[in-house]
Amino acid sequence: MAPEKLCSATARLSTLKTMVSQALTDVDIAQAHTLEPITGIARRAGIPADAVIPYGTTKAKVDITRLPRDAPTGKLVLVTGVSPTPAGEGKSTVLIGLTDALTRAGKKAAVAIREPSQGPLMGMKGGAAGGGYSQIVPMEEINLHFTGDFHAVAAATNTLAALIDNHIHQGNALNIDSRRVTWQRCMDVNDRSLREVVTGLGGSAHGVPRETGFTITAASEIMAILGLATDLTDLKRRLAAITVGFTRERKPVTAGQLQAEGALAALLKEAINPNLVQTLGGTPAFVHGGPFANIAHGCNSLLATRVALQYADIVLTEAGFGSDLGAEKFFDIKARYGDLDVAGTVVVATIRSLKFNGGLAKEELATENLAALKAGVANLERHVSNIQQFGVTPVVALNVFTADTTAEREFMRTWARGFGVALAEAEVWAKGGAGAAELAELVLGNLRGRSTQLYDPADGVEASIRTIATRLYRAGDIEYSPQAHKDLAVIRENGWDRLPVCISKTQYSFSDDPRALGAPSGHTLHVRELLPRTGAGFIVALTGAVMTMPGLPSRPSAERIDVAADGRISGLF
Amino acid sequence: MAPEKLCSATARLSTLKTMVSQALTDVDIAQAHTLEPITGIARRAGIPADAVIPYGTTKAKVDITRLPRDAPTGKLVLVTGVSPTPAGEGKSTVLIGLTDALTRAGKKAAVAIREPSQGPLMGMKGGAAGGGYSQIVPMEEINLHFTGDFHAVAAATNTLAALIDNHIHQGNALNIDSRRVTWQRCMDVNDRSLREVVTGLGGSAHGVPRETGFTITAASEIMAILGLATDLTDLKRRLAAITVGFTRERKPVTAGQLQAEGALAALLKEAINPNLVQTLGGTPAFVHGGPFANIAHGCNSLLATRVALQYADIVLTEAGFGSDLGAEKFFDIKARYGDLDVAGTVVVATIRSLKFNGGLAKEELATENLAALKAGVANLERHVSNIQQFGVTPVVALNVFTADTTAEREFMRTWARGFGVALAEAEVWAKGGAGAAELAELVLGNLRGRSTQLYDPADGVEASIRTIATRLYRAGDIEYSPQAHKDLAVIRENGWDRLPVCISKTQYSFSDDPRALGAPSGHTLHVRELLPRTGAGFIVALTGAVMTMPGLPSRPSAERIDVAADGRISGLF
Repeated sequence: MAPEKLCSATARLSTLKTMVSQALTDVDIAQAHTLEPITGIARRAGIPADAVIPYGTTKAKVDITRLPRDAPTGKLVLVTGVSPTPAGEGKSTVLIGLTDALTRAGKKAAVAIREPSQGPLMGMKGGAAGGGYSQIVPMEEINLHFTGDFHAVAAATNTLAALIDNHIHQGNALNIDSRRVTWQRCMDVNDRSLREVVTGLGGSAHGVPRETGFTITAASEIMAILGLATDLTDLKRRLAAITVGFTRERKPVTAGQLQAEGALAALLKEAINPNLVQTLGGTPAFVHGGPFANIAHGCNSLLATRVALQYADIVLTEAGFGSDLGAEKFFDIKARYGDLDVAGTVVVATIRSLKFNGGLAKEELATENLAALKAGVANLERHVSNIQQFGVTPVVALNVFTADTTAEREFMRTWARGFGVALAEAEVWAKGGAGAAELAELVLGNLRGRSTQLYDPADGVEASIRTIATRLYRAGDIEYSPQAHKDLAVIRENGWDRLPVCISKTQYSFSDDPRALGAPSGHTLHVRELLPRTGAGFIVALTGAVMTMPGLPSRPSAERIDVAADGRISGLF
Repeated sequence: MAPEKLCSATARLSTLKTMVSQALTDVDIAQAHTLEPITGIARRAGIPADAVIPYGTTKAKVDITRLPRDAPTGKLVLVTGVSPTPAGEGKSTVLIGLTDALTRAGKKAAVAIREPSQGPLMGMKGGAAGGGYSQIVPMEEINLHFTGDFHAVAAATNTLAALIDNHIHQGNALNIDSRRVTWQRCMDVNDRSLREVVTGLGGSAHGVPRETGFTITAASEIMAILGLATDLTDLKRRLAAITVGFTRERKPVTAGQLQAEGALAALLKEAINPNLVQTLGGTPAFVHGGPFANIAHGCNSLLATRVALQYADIVLTEAGFGSDLGAEKFFDIKARYGDLDVAGTVVVATIRSLKFNGGLAKEELATENLAALKAGVANLERHVSNIQQFGVTPVVALNVFTADTTAEREFMRTWARGFGVALAEAEVWAKGGAGAAELAELVLGNLRGRSTQLYDPADGVEASIRTIATRLYRAGDIEYSPQAHKDLAVIRENGWDRLPVCISKTQYSFSDDPRALGAPSGHTLHVRELLPRTGAGFIVALTGAVMTMPGLPSRPSAERIDVAADGRISGLF
């Protein structure tokens, strides 16, 4: 699963498993399902047979070099959510159930979502993608290695690191300042011990000692690049543009100067092809690319979205976190670079998340509390109005839980009528597509969008940050740290000031203070640091500490994961 | 390619490309070839269709859980070589050409060899496996990620490392001595900067600082385990038995005590299945597992060999380096654990390697020198007589090069008659299977072996080392360093003294001195250190410095590797 969703599976288990009498786990449900051969899924979608690269019988890659370059004709629907509780609100599960509901309604639908990271699987119990009867399968294989994309990204990332250190070791013709190498290695393993390391020890035959670190693979800039590249040529161009560090004269050094882009692209040649799997409802699911939703744009690959739009009439896709984070980045980074038009949006809300935003503690969420719900609904209102700023009319999907009371559900329906937004309940975990029929109808009735972007990057990084902060976060002011001021100078000096921005902010608040729940306004956004991601093509603005390499808990779920003699996996969820 | 073959491709290029008038490279030849669909190869081999897991159309894995457990009926032929020049002698190329010759002769033949390591590919120009018209295809895909086995081994290796550091960080209930953790992380990248590192820096939230290092993935004990495991149950048993370090009281700590084996086996669930590809001659090729030939046993997986023997009448397999290294380990470790019987052996020799062993410098090898050849042939004699100690009659394959003169080739034929060994020339690089017809006949005529092992591990590690050293290396004495004496005590204390030994020694000499070429005897073998590999099930005896993480050269081949817009790879060879 995406690292930032670490806890959602645990929560789903504890809160939702009473919904099914047998208390089946996700992996039980997934393993009990008979999958359609992936060649059949591809054939029904209309994908040319010679473009389908099977990985076993239930997974495939779609060879982008063998697809016709027709303009996509499908309608794109973006699924986002309210500011979450630490447990997550089941956004992917709603998305998958909703798509299956569209399929049941006779529509040619498809899913396009990120692929899961393997590292967190060994930490907290849980897996991706979706849950209950709204899952993408084969879930164990999607969670374990899948088609190797993360490994390819890691291989490219670490090959580039090796080329940098080798360049310094072999004479350093480019005069790279070994203290100013910004490129980090990565690994798809939760390993806090790799966050800060010293490499190159042991004497002059073993490189130059320097301080560096590892991120989890999802946080590598190459993952972001893979998610935005339009073809192999664009991939190489972006790889060459990666800034790996600075010279002693403070000039940027690129991967292109190390002549690395050809080899890195060769390592990514298969990874760039979108993966095709299926939902439990037999809907084609393109699960591809897995960039962070924080220091990167947090959505599935542009190519997967495009291929899905080419072969389906309606495509549901997801962006990490709420309108302030994933959705904003979806419109301003991915849709901008990919020339995508979003026809509709869905904001997933849960009664417990709104009560959490209304001030309740995590332990109090299972008890009816209309006052907290009323206070917290301001958060949903803010997300809805944020989305409207991108030119699209959102539909609210209320993901219902057994603890939700009749009065609370009634309150939400009344609120929606008053606020003028379409709302439907979804019961997708327990019922799959059958639990989202009304929601599907609402979505189909609201495909009138023509989406826009929020800012013009040509106005410069500071102006872009200001627009996002004032219009979406409702900040009163923006404060740049001394480091951020220095970073801005470097950005201007090197001609990076017209790149879109990717703001890294807590998902729990519209402000940069995770405790300011609900719908705060007038706060000050603190920009601490600006990181040029010249390959991906954006500037990351850090507004808080970001953990790019998770750790393992005291009882890692790795202790419970097992495989039987017949190859059957257990303990994933 | 296997790391220890780093230079062989370069040499093949420079020495052999004059053999084909168009100076085609390996990748040119491979790309010009039309491959048979892998399902067709599997069908012809008789592998049940439901056991074939396609990875694209030209690669597959064979699902071991779906195969009948019949006793293999094929005959196994082991291909080994003389002590090599630094450029290698084309052992794999001869093996592949020879198998294609057997196929041409109407035999149901198969290849079983190691899969290549990706890291070295970015360093020295070159790829695996085989070369010219004796290759295994699709060569680019086999060389780049293949079916993800190396990545799975790295994921398991690094997950175990994370579990160890996490255990220490979370309270260290097992009382692991952080200075005595012997488990290292790995990566399939040539990166000297990772040989010696300090991890866990940055404060108490980020683990416990300690000195450690990375090896290349091929050197991970988990790669050796994957190569010896007979099924998923045996895999888990071996994983649990890995010694990861020692407590403060000097008691060994195992992966099993960390409850890691289930999760690690889950990560290796697909990797354990042998890969099926094909030779240019259409022969099924099982390319699976890639352990070092030095600190590990250096041959393809036991499962690949077994599956090959189940579906072919004659299977050619390879062991890293000569009779003193790979072949000895093949008989004494792999064949012992896997209950394999070797029916025939081939010793690959080249005139230039014998002249090198006869004292010529690398630069002089292209010039006729019968005196050097006569002196160097003692090396071949030694390898032949070593092989005979395992109960099998070797055939000599003379891999001819354009620089070989008529007089030199005639000398070899005369020598073979005099020494009483069957010899045939092979011209497999330029001619494929057609260049090994005579060799194939000789091999078929010499399948009368019933192989044995050299020593009984029950006699203890010291006795096993003595037997190998005196009977194969012809050492006069064995000297243990003070460290090796300490290690021996630990081995006895912990009940590891009855494990087979895996001697890590230079491939250039029968002694531990790489300059002592030819057929030295009476030398002293220096055992410096003994490493328990309790998961793989052997004790590594180091007799010299071993580099388990290669570096990149000043002009890495990564600079020349490229991929075109249509996905075509170039620069691999």
